[in-house]
Amino acid sequence: MLTQKTIKQINSLNQKKFRQQAGLFIVEGVKGVGEAMNSSARVELVVIEDSKRQQKDFIELARLADQKKINLEYCAPSAIKKIKSTETFPGILAVIKQPEVYVEDLFETNNIICLDKISDPGNLGTIIRTADWFGLKNIILSENCVELYNPKVVRATMGSIFHVNIFQSNNLADDLLVFKKEKNYFLSGLVLDGVNLEKMSNGNKTIYILGSESHGIRPEIERILDKKYTILGKGRAESLNVAITAGILLNKITAC
Amino acid sequence: MLTQKTIKQINSLNQKKFRQQAGLFIVEGVKGVGEAMNSSARVELVVIEDSKRQQKDFIELARLADQKKINLEYCAPSAIKKIKSTETFPGILAVIKQPEVYVEDLFETNNIICLDKISDPGNLGTIIRTADWFGLKNIILSENCVELYNPKVVRATMGSIFHVNIFQSNNLADDLLVFKKEKNYFLSGLVLDGVNLEKMSNGNKTIYILGSESHGIRPEIERILDKKYTILGKGRAESLNVAITAGILLNKITAC
Repeated sequence: MLTQKTIKQINSLNQKKFRQQAGLFIVEGVKGVGEAMNSSARVELVVIEDSKRQQKDFIELARLADQKKINLEYCAPSAIKKIKSTETFPGILAVIKQPEVYVEDLFETNNIICLDKISDPGNLGTIIRTADWFGLKNIILSENCVELYNPKVVRATMGSIFHVNIFQSNNLADDLLVFKKEKNYFLSGLVLDGVNLEKMSNGNKTIYILGSESHGIRPEIERILDKKYTILGKGRAESLNVAITAGILLNKITAC
Repeated sequence: MLTQKTIKQINSLNQKKFRQQAGLFIVEGVKGVGEAMNSSARVELVVIEDSKRQQKDFIELARLADQKKINLEYCAPSAIKKIKSTETFPGILAVIKQPEVYVEDLFETNNIICLDKISDPGNLGTIIRTADWFGLKNIILSENCVELYNPKVVRATMGSIFHVNIFQSNNLADDLLVFKKEKNYFLSGLVLDGVNLEKMSNGNKTIYILGSESHGIRPEIERILDKKYTILGKGRAESLNVAITAGILLNKITAC
């Protein structure tokens, strides 16, 4: 069973500050935990709710943890209350080491999606899931995005967080300049007054940049773009949701 | 000021049962209320939080209500607590009459988006907002979708609910057959094993059908489709979010 110390540690990982200190994060649910164990992620601990230990999905995940020599603990409902991040706990969680991704890790890739100041966790998670769907594995987050390991982000990725490389920049403008000047990447951004996205043709080594719905791409980033594109609207809505924009862009990149 | 009776009535509209009985729904926020008053929606009442009455946006909306002869009430914070549907009340709400949209209202239109069993309110609202962005004004909801006037749906539409015609079917399979057999509509559905969506060409009078993420289009609907399309994935994600799918489809319809 879980010790009080472990319960306390898991509980602390619901807060960003402690996630950063410990370099850990939590994924909940059969799908997410399964994806984690089947990926290169370092899974530190799996916790299964005691009442679920006889259910098929959970038996399989317990077996997988055993095969991979991952610590596995069963946990009473009273302890679950202290560690869960949502009202309805899905019966299983895993504690995962935050992977270390460096800017250099992305230098050899072709297409990269870059998100500037995306603040809604559901949108960030959905964009990661959508990038994974289209097979685009490399993502850059600006310094002011919502935290990648926020439980709502992790949940919305539906396990895709374990399939992609995500570099979290501390200074996006500087990093993009390195990509552009030293690594010959082309910088394409989605803005309100660009060329029709339908006319985009896909060259090699491009970073596609999306800004927030309310503020768009920050001026210091927009200034260094090589090309600007727009998804043309015909109706009366003021803006497109940023995850929808990303989906249309990713589909276009793949179809190009 | 608001009477106790009105406070009670507004509060009751947070429940689906009472929304249906009264044929009313609530929109909150400056943008939503503004869109409602500037549309053909029948706005029964506007309520502004007393402390906001001197703020610019609220003064403008109060003036608009006056011009349009819409009932306007100011409201003390203590009453707001009883009527708000979210933790952070944005200072204004309106009570709106649910419009009556009949199947016949859609017979003369070209393209229609049809949603089968979409259960997530955020997804439904986002799809309505995206349809509005692309100028596609006609939407059919199946009998088992999340309720259109659920506050989370209304909020996610960002005011677009007032720009589109939404017919809520009681029997989608039967209604689609009428469109197909009597009105010569072509039925195209998004499924997992269809033709690449990129190959779609856009004829006249088509109904585009999307099912839920977990179950897809129901068999009785899939059976009557004329054509099936798929958004091809290359990665490892199991599925695309349905709102993302709708966004890619809507962009394709517009670009065709």
